[in-house]
Amino acid sequence: MGMGTLYGIGVGPGDSGLLTVKGREILGRSQVICVPKSKTERESVALSVVKPYLAEDAVVEELLFPMSRDEAVLEAHWQEAAQAVAKLLEQYDSVAFLTIGDPLLYSTFGYLLKFLQQVAPQAPVEVVPGISSFNAAASLLRIPLVEQNERLAVVPLPVTEQEFLGLSQYVDTVVFLKVSAGFDELLDLLEASEFADEVYLVSRCGTGDEFWTNDPFAMRGQKIDYLSLLIAKRRKG
Amino acid sequence: MGMGTLYGIGVGPGDSGLLTVKGREILGRSQVICVPKSKTERESVALSVVKPYLAEDAVVEELLFPMSRDEAVLEAHWQEAAQAVAKLLEQYDSVAFLTIGDPLLYSTFGYLLKFLQQVAPQAPVEVVPGISSFNAAASLLRIPLVEQNERLAVVPLPVTEQEFLGLSQYVDTVVFLKVSAGFDELLDLLEASEFADEVYLVSRCGTGDEFWTNDPFAMRGQKIDYLSLLIAKRRKG
Repeated sequence: MGMGTLYGIGVGPGDSGLLTVKGREILGRSQVICVPKSKTERESVALSVVKPYLAEDAVVEELLFPMSRDEAVLEAHWQEAAQAVAKLLEQYDSVAFLTIGDPLLYSTFGYLLKFLQQVAPQAPVEVVPGISSFNAAASLLRIPLVEQNERLAVVPLPVTEQEFLGLSQYVDTVVFLKVSAGFDELLDLLEASEFADEVYLVSRCGTGDEFWTNDPFAMRGQKIDYLSLLIAKRRKG
Repeated sequence: MGMGTLYGIGVGPGDSGLLTVKGREILGRSQVICVPKSKTERESVALSVVKPYLAEDAVVEELLFPMSRDEAVLEAHWQEAAQAVAKLLEQYDSVAFLTIGDPLLYSTFGYLLKFLQQVAPQAPVEVVPGISSFNAAASLLRIPLVEQNERLAVVPLPVTEQEFLGLSQYVDTVVFLKVSAGFDELLDLLEASEFADEVYLVSRCGTGDEFWTNDPFAMRGQKIDYLSLLIAKRRKG
């Protein structure tokens, strides 16, 4: 008997309208919906985004992951998750695995894929891209991220002064992710650079309680939401 | 009388299924669809992507642009286009402006927005993000673009050796756009770097005649399709 297909689906930043037509269509006919979830979450954000589109009898499988920095702990959990998914693919034709944003840009789906290729190399996999948080943030702000021959960098924190000074010579726009860890230090770096004039902070983009400001420097010392990014553009001319 | 709303809609890389649910919904009720088009195209790619979703009586307005490197020529055309759009917004409630990929990542929509804000600053604008070509390419290849704390750079060609050597110290994955202009020179740069082992070329991603290879070095000397990008990843360990 052949195996079912695993669909890795990017659900976008948090707004149900930003799922793709293809993602919606696949979710509507998927018998099982796999959702990675940390212990601290009440409900998966990814699951809440797609709820309106799920088949009535769809089975939701939560894959629980520890918030661990220990690579070995994480790998053990991903291996277990891949085995669970492989088992589901023996039972069902269509298994969807949800990720916030895009499945291959800072997503856990890459891990699942790696381990699934080990435990079930014959399993058919299709990946459906999703809108990344920084594309959605630019739409919200209505500012071009990059134009013509400009260069873009995407940098999750932490970032050192040396690294920022080096990298910033070569790019026109920097998107910083995970900015809640080291926000004030990041503002210091930006303030001393050519990237101080045009800086935007966007939190929880695409959700009901999204927030943005073009003066993040005024927020020094405040607690920044975990789901925040910062866009900094080089001074022109 | 109030003005209609301009919707800047990213239609994704070229596959109708990769439009967002929100983009589809707005297109279905838009009375006018604006499409930027160069003289050499027979039909706009963006228009062909959304054709299945348009209202039957939707009016398509083609905005013709020269393929010019002369900034003044381009600006004059964009100013004219912004005036045309402003006029449409006086007549219609909902005017959609299409762009391939995302409207704020290397798109002409940024120009339109800038000039529209000059000629009709009161016009309401909503931007709907779209899937970028490199996210779609990663999905096609089923490889993570970046994971965990890795850094991503997006670099349209041309790129000099000095720039690549400098930038590449700070990033883990580089997406090169517009690679048909200087393909062999780019291969030379990569071959002499830590980015030679994992390199993918993707052409016309998301369309019927998409093509990809993980050995672009074998294509040296060949003509590369204009709609091509290259993903290069740093050697690990």
